[in-house]
Amino acid sequence: MGMTMTQKILAAAAGLDHVEAGQLIEADLDLVLGNDITSPVAIHEMEKFAKKDVFHKDKIALVMDHFIPNKDIKSAEHCKCVREFACKHEITNYFDVGDMGIEHALLPEKGLVVAGDVVIGADSHTCTYGALGAFSTGVGSTDMAAGMATGKAWFKVPSAIRFRLVGKPSRWISGKDVILHIIGMIGVDGALYKSMEFVGEGVASLSMDDRFTIANMAIEAGGKNGIFSVDDQAIAYMKEHSQREFKIYEADPDAVYEEEYTIDLSQLKPTVALPHLPENTKTIDEISEDVKIDQSVIGSCTNGRMDDLRAAAEILKGRRVKKGVRCIVIPATQAIYLQAMEEGLLKIFIEAGAVVSTPTCGPCLGGYMGILAAGERCISTTNRNFVGRMGHVDSEVYLASPAVAAASAVTGKISSPEELEA
Amino acid sequence: MGMTMTQKILAAAAGLDHVEAGQLIEADLDLVLGNDITSPVAIHEMEKFAKKDVFHKDKIALVMDHFIPNKDIKSAEHCKCVREFACKHEITNYFDVGDMGIEHALLPEKGLVVAGDVVIGADSHTCTYGALGAFSTGVGSTDMAAGMATGKAWFKVPSAIRFRLVGKPSRWISGKDVILHIIGMIGVDGALYKSMEFVGEGVASLSMDDRFTIANMAIEAGGKNGIFSVDDQAIAYMKEHSQREFKIYEADPDAVYEEEYTIDLSQLKPTVALPHLPENTKTIDEISEDVKIDQSVIGSCTNGRMDDLRAAAEILKGRRVKKGVRCIVIPATQAIYLQAMEEGLLKIFIEAGAVVSTPTCGPCLGGYMGILAAGERCISTTNRNFVGRMGHVDSEVYLASPAVAAASAVTGKISSPEELEA
Repeated sequence: MGMTMTQKILAAAAGLDHVEAGQLIEADLDLVLGNDITSPVAIHEMEKFAKKDVFHKDKIALVMDHFIPNKDIKSAEHCKCVREFACKHEITNYFDVGDMGIEHALLPEKGLVVAGDVVIGADSHTCTYGALGAFSTGVGSTDMAAGMATGKAWFKVPSAIRFRLVGKPSRWISGKDVILHIIGMIGVDGALYKSMEFVGEGVASLSMDDRFTIANMAIEAGGKNGIFSVDDQAIAYMKEHSQREFKIYEADPDAVYEEEYTIDLSQLKPTVALPHLPENTKTIDEISEDVKIDQSVIGSCTNGRMDDLRAAAEILKGRRVKKGVRCIVIPATQAIYLQAMEEGLLKIFIEAGAVVSTPTCGPCLGGYMGILAAGERCISTTNRNFVGRMGHVDSEVYLASPAVAAASAVTGKISSPEELEA
Repeated sequence: MGMTMTQKILAAAAGLDHVEAGQLIEADLDLVLGNDITSPVAIHEMEKFAKKDVFHKDKIALVMDHFIPNKDIKSAEHCKCVREFACKHEITNYFDVGDMGIEHALLPEKGLVVAGDVVIGADSHTCTYGALGAFSTGVGSTDMAAGMATGKAWFKVPSAIRFRLVGKPSRWISGKDVILHIIGMIGVDGALYKSMEFVGEGVASLSMDDRFTIANMAIEAGGKNGIFSVDDQAIAYMKEHSQREFKIYEADPDAVYEEEYTIDLSQLKPTVALPHLPENTKTIDEISEDVKIDQSVIGSCTNGRMDDLRAAAEILKGRRVKKGVRCIVIPATQAIYLQAMEEGLLKIFIEAGAVVSTPTCGPCLGGYMGILAAGERCISTTNRNFVGRMGHVDSEVYLASPAVAAASAVTGKISSPEELEA
């Protein structure tokens, strides 16, 4: 019986010729990731172990990104704990204020993940790196601790769903619309503990940033991981960003998939997930009433990359954010911030009446930098719109692409970019 | 008996020919200011009044600056309260995310304060506008409420100290060094309930940004207000920024000053206020031991203006922030942010490994955007270094100029800009 892309990576990492869904394996890890929220817990767990050393100082990434620059004393203490740990163990890939970014944008940019890798991260959106043909998945802080100490992790080999992408998306359709469409179709538990494997001719028409966005939100359908077939574009990305060797795994022709969907990208419309689940999707033309917004957030590990900022800037250029709307743009990394400045995007944002934040997860998880009061409504390019996710339990989050979030900031209500061009 | 600058402004605002120190007067207000922390209290107070309307919708400024974009649910609720009040009363000068800045940098920039004005603000650093020859002072939220309702406020006319500035400051000496020197000399209660009046030939060699910094910290010597004689530079500033008519008040030749100091600007050295009071000053050459820092903050209502950012950029250009130091740059307003971007300063900061924040008071008062953990030390261009001011009670804040804060970010210890040039 053939193996899926994911299964082939896991088999190789476990030193096995063959694995199948449901099998328990122990795999070697290429990278163990933690952030300023999860790492302190893992570090304290590690203190209980007999083994006090880390397995490999180059294969651990500690990224301070959720609440930095420190938003309060507690987050300051958390960062201090991780900083001291990183210093003590001479962790090569420790990222703090100044040389940092949101973990899931930063690691590919820094070349720390390539095709064929097995990566665990104490953050649910670790699945992002599947865009590069890696197996990567979110774990708890205890698993992160064990991973840091041993360089290994146990997995139950996942079964898989295959998404065959065909067609070319129209102008304002991005990776965000693709993944919101899919989550709307299969539901937030539609891929529970399964791999979501994205293949087909349509992949080529998605930029790497689109793919990061799609893989990033695999967890929002319950997926164990999301993964793309590796093409020339992905190879070019890896060669540009990384010195590491990569290995491309393709699914066997007779690989078993529990389900298979064909997604015609040319048929997609701008898609919005209404409160309070990412599966509550509507295409924007299905939203007939005026949905007024108080805030628009453009950023996060899902949508804070160059493509995202360029799309938002294309909308905001020469336009103004509607009076009464707060528009917060958050470049995902320092490098993206600098690039966006060089391209004139930040100027466009400021002149439109948006603010540009330091790279941070901030508002996405109700941390800081745009928290909602009772009764407030936000359109956001982030990944979750659960009750109270961005602040008060009586606030609402609508998930959408950067283009839709930018267009909505201009009109003050949830809007399609096409509305502005009419 | 002659009147001081301050007394002449207050006499005119009270409709009196003459006032003297200690006299109680009721003055007409040209502007009443509140921010996102103090305005909600004032708004709730106003609800208790028989009079429900504001005295003048153009003469109230509500500036959301301390904790925005909203840092938490509480701050979100505060902003919402002020926003609704501003909307209901059609307050002209309501400033929120996107069209905003730190209040004391924003109001002069927007032309809302000119020479001869009487301004109260529910923020202690309201004394900043004295740089323009206005009388401005901090009040409590209840006084702000009464001011919004009536357009008047009671004052006890202050006595005054005169600071006669002579000489020209050397290269790295800024307004911050001048005011730290003065506070070190007279102490944090050295000007208690008194006007600090700055006059003399030396004024001309201070930029407007230097003067804002000096007037801003009058409160740190206990001053009721700080005020500068108005010269061509101040007039040019007002003409550039404001459409309003201004009126210049000069002290009478026989005005009574309780004390008079002559400050030779040419003799000043870079000055640092050590924990935990602004009066604990040393010149930088008096600090012989290495004082290592964890963080450098460049910004605030005291030092987040163009001159400040230019000085910091001059130091940071082509250099790197020391590994292990977090350097946080906070342009004080959106306009300053944009200007600093246009001049290439933000690029210098990012390339040096600093981060650039949205305009906010943030870390200065332990709000967010750079809070300190136990045992951490920060050099900061802000105005207060009280115990726990920026975070944990066991953290330390050293106050200094932007040039010193930037130089220290590079070396990782408190340093003079000259050290880098050696």
